[in-house]
Amino acid sequence: MSDLVWSDAEKEVAQIAFNRAYEREIAALIQDVSTQAASIAALEDLWRLHDFLSARRHDVDGKYDYRYSVLVFVFSRLVKEGWLQLDELEGLEQSKVSKIAALARM
Amino acid sequence: MSDLVWSDAEKEVAQIAFNRAYEREIAALIQDVSTQAASIAALEDLWRLHDFLSARRHDVDGKYDYRYSVLVFVFSRLVKEGWLQLDELEGLEQSKVSKIAALARM
Repeated sequence: MSDLVWSDAEKEVAQIAFNRAYEREIAALIQDVSTQAASIAALEDLWRLHDFLSARRHDVDGKYDYRYSVLVFVFSRLVKEGWLQLDELEGLEQSKVSKIAALARM
Repeated sequence: MSDLVWSDAEKEVAQIAFNRAYEREIAALIQDVSTQAASIAALEDLWRLHDFLSARRHDVDGKYDYRYSVLVFVFSRLVKEGWLQLDELEGLEQSKVSKIAALARM
C-alpha cells in the first residue's frame, strides 16, 4: 500500500483532509486541557494533567505523519477515531477510499 | 553535615517548616499553571505547558526530600528560593540555623 500513486488533484484533497482532521483534534485537545486545568486543586491534579499531556503529545506527534507512503493508514486511523469523515476524502481514487474505509473498520 | 543529630523537638519544628514550604510552593505552582492554562490558544501553548510541568515535576520531586541527612541542604534551598523564612526554623539548634543561612546565601 506504500506504493500507491497520488495524483496532484489527490494530493490537494489529501492535504486539505489531513489539515482539517489535525485542526479538529487539536481544538478538541485544547478544549479538553482547558477544562481539566480549570479544576486543578491539588498537586495530583497537576501531575495527572502532566501525564495526560505526555500521552497526547506522543500520540499526536506520531499520528500526523504526512508521507504518501503511510497516508492510507493515517487516514484510516483518523476516520476510525472520528477526526475525519470518509466523504471528506472525495476526490481520491475509489480504490484508496475503499482501503481507508476497510482499515478504519478493523 | 549529614551526621547532625536532630532532637524530637527539632524534628517537630523541621516537619512543620518543611510542610509549610511545600504547601506554599505547590499553591504557587497550581496558581501558575491555572494562569497559563487559561490562555492556551494553540498547540504550541499546550506543549509549552507540558514542558513547564515536566520541569517543575522533576524539580519538586527532587527538592522535597525529608531525610535528616540532607535536611540542612533542603532547608537552605527553600530559604534561598523564598519558600521558607529563616525565622520559621526557630527551635532548631543555632548551629543548624547558621549553616542553613550560610548555605542559602551561596
